[in-house]
Amino acid sequence: MNEFTFNLEAQDGSGRAGTFHTHHGPIRTPVFAPVGTQATVKALTPAQLSELGGTLLLANTYHLFLRPGENVVKEIGGLHQFMQWNGPILTDSGGFQIFSLADRRKVDSGGVTFKSHLDGSEHRFTPEDVIRIQENLGADIIMVLDECAKPYEREYIEAALERTHRWAERSLVAKKRDDQALFGIIQGGIFPDLRTRSAKFIASLDFSGVAIGGLSVGETKDEMHKILDVLEPDLPEDKPRYLMGVGSLDDIVEAVVRGIDIFDCVLPTRMARNNTVMTRTGRMNLRNAPFISDKRPIDSSCACYTCQTFTRAYLRHLIVAQEMLAATLLSIHNLHVLVSLTEELRDAIFAGKIDQFAEDFRKHYQKHRPSET
Amino acid sequence: MNEFTFNLEAQDGSGRAGTFHTHHGPIRTPVFAPVGTQATVKALTPAQLSELGGTLLLANTYHLFLRPGENVVKEIGGLHQFMQWNGPILTDSGGFQIFSLADRRKVDSGGVTFKSHLDGSEHRFTPEDVIRIQENLGADIIMVLDECAKPYEREYIEAALERTHRWAERSLVAKKRDDQALFGIIQGGIFPDLRTRSAKFIASLDFSGVAIGGLSVGETKDEMHKILDVLEPDLPEDKPRYLMGVGSLDDIVEAVVRGIDIFDCVLPTRMARNNTVMTRTGRMNLRNAPFISDKRPIDSSCACYTCQTFTRAYLRHLIVAQEMLAATLLSIHNLHVLVSLTEELRDAIFAGKIDQFAEDFRKHYQKHRPSET
Repeated sequence: MNEFTFNLEAQDGSGRAGTFHTHHGPIRTPVFAPVGTQATVKALTPAQLSELGGTLLLANTYHLFLRPGENVVKEIGGLHQFMQWNGPILTDSGGFQIFSLADRRKVDSGGVTFKSHLDGSEHRFTPEDVIRIQENLGADIIMVLDECAKPYEREYIEAALERTHRWAERSLVAKKRDDQALFGIIQGGIFPDLRTRSAKFIASLDFSGVAIGGLSVGETKDEMHKILDVLEPDLPEDKPRYLMGVGSLDDIVEAVVRGIDIFDCVLPTRMARNNTVMTRTGRMNLRNAPFISDKRPIDSSCACYTCQTFTRAYLRHLIVAQEMLAATLLSIHNLHVLVSLTEELRDAIFAGKIDQFAEDFRKHYQKHRPSET
Repeated sequence: MNEFTFNLEAQDGSGRAGTFHTHHGPIRTPVFAPVGTQATVKALTPAQLSELGGTLLLANTYHLFLRPGENVVKEIGGLHQFMQWNGPILTDSGGFQIFSLADRRKVDSGGVTFKSHLDGSEHRFTPEDVIRIQENLGADIIMVLDECAKPYEREYIEAALERTHRWAERSLVAKKRDDQALFGIIQGGIFPDLRTRSAKFIASLDFSGVAIGGLSVGETKDEMHKILDVLEPDLPEDKPRYLMGVGSLDDIVEAVVRGIDIFDCVLPTRMARNNTVMTRTGRMNLRNAPFISDKRPIDSSCACYTCQTFTRAYLRHLIVAQEMLAATLLSIHNLHVLVSLTEELRDAIFAGKIDQFAEDFRKHYQKHRPSET
């Protein structure tokens, strides 16, 4: 039934390097997926995404359901055709947006009713609806509807977890297309026993991959690492493991060390629109005055178009002058930083040097800020 | 003294095809120059500009003087280095912005005093200041300070014209760099005798090119055409002729027929940011509902990245979802339309078919609107 293969090509400690095969090409893991919320990675063309090394893109079911609507995307020929991305695409279930963005949601065992954040219109998503919508959108990887509860409320989380598990079973039944890989989602907040229960249950079902939801939603980094450590033994070895919504450099390194394969996050593009760039040594806000006539690139060791072409002085000028090009150039850089980080992590795993890579990374990250040199 | 050569390669009626040689490469005319007001063509990278066929870019002295300041640009190595455009660049004198954008300006025979539209700070531009600023910015083509008066006030225009002529003489004296081509500017509103007087005077000075200012500022198209007809016999044959601030398709065709070589305008990029695309048959606003699932490109005969890649449905979605990518993709298209129009006009002049080209153009333009098909 599950036609998608994940080749585990190397292991180093818990770290993994592999290839997940989709109908739009292979995904080499570990991989970071840029987020194209509304079927566009903000401020970037597909040509620019391709050039910076992007392979897997994420788009949001909740947003595309509301605008332009699943049927419009289907009529144009699906998401790949619509947004002109010929590589693999993943759509989330909309669950996270419903529980974080939509107004007045009401959950019951059958599904969730909510009002659009755009116009207040009421909608209902059942697990079956979410599969149907994602089949109409046509991504390569699709996700089950889950409930992302607040991480510390044990009693509520336990009830939500049961719902999420029933929804997972129903999603598998509802699925019709065989060219899409369906991933299950593990929940359970910060509670090790609930997480383990969820991991065992989701791993027992016939999913093509396993995602970890409900992390990076307010818990501490230590709590996140602990949950990843707890989960690792119960995650299937022969399926890709996807840590949803995680995308800072340090979180990615710590999660790859703990056996995660796939990441996505709006952080790099959102930070770019807020004038902040990521580097291996930390972040810097390019709006700061010292950059006014700084002839250096953001990072002289970075191979991205922005660093190969422009000075910090020019980027700061674009920011101060409120020019759109700033968002484009900073997004190219930040995404390239994450994409190349996962590529280097992959190389380190093949080389059997993941621990050394992580140690080197931790030593430099945030210790020395380029903005102060 | 004037080291810049303009090779007139073909003439057809009053239409001209030529090459203007600069230190950053040749400019094949007729040419349309995209406007990079603040040292960036809004929403586009230099790579995208190059790909769409851009050769000559324009940047605004007034804006760059205020932000980031001439000395910052100079310190980085000049405008080419700053904005990373290795082709030819033209800077205007700031005159137009002072008379249209700045607050509380006061003109006297020595120069013009104005307050910044950004922070109200007071500044004074003399013709000599404007040459100095443009020498610091380092464009290939620089312009004299002129006064762009309202087109119908004869008495005022006549006084402004005398000032503009004195400023032109002073600018030539002030100029120091020999790797920049200085253009004079003809004014005179809609009054044929004043225009002729100005053309004869500016043509008599040792400029590398001649610009026509004060058109496309509120007068009718017939009035503009009439002034171009009046001017043509008095424009030097061996220098490029630049019609400032003109950039609609029909205006370009009518002006090339009347002997103009160089154009610039914010219209294509500004229209793009307002969801409107240019085509040979007229304009269309892509926000309109009928485009919601329109699988066609903007123009199936257009060779630009946008038309070669995306549907109207996707572009409309980006607009409705308020995504920045809309401005990028529509700007690429609109600029390509103008650049390719001037290229075809050049070909038509070489082929001796400029009248036929113009006639064909007029027949299709605005007669049939793609938005209604």
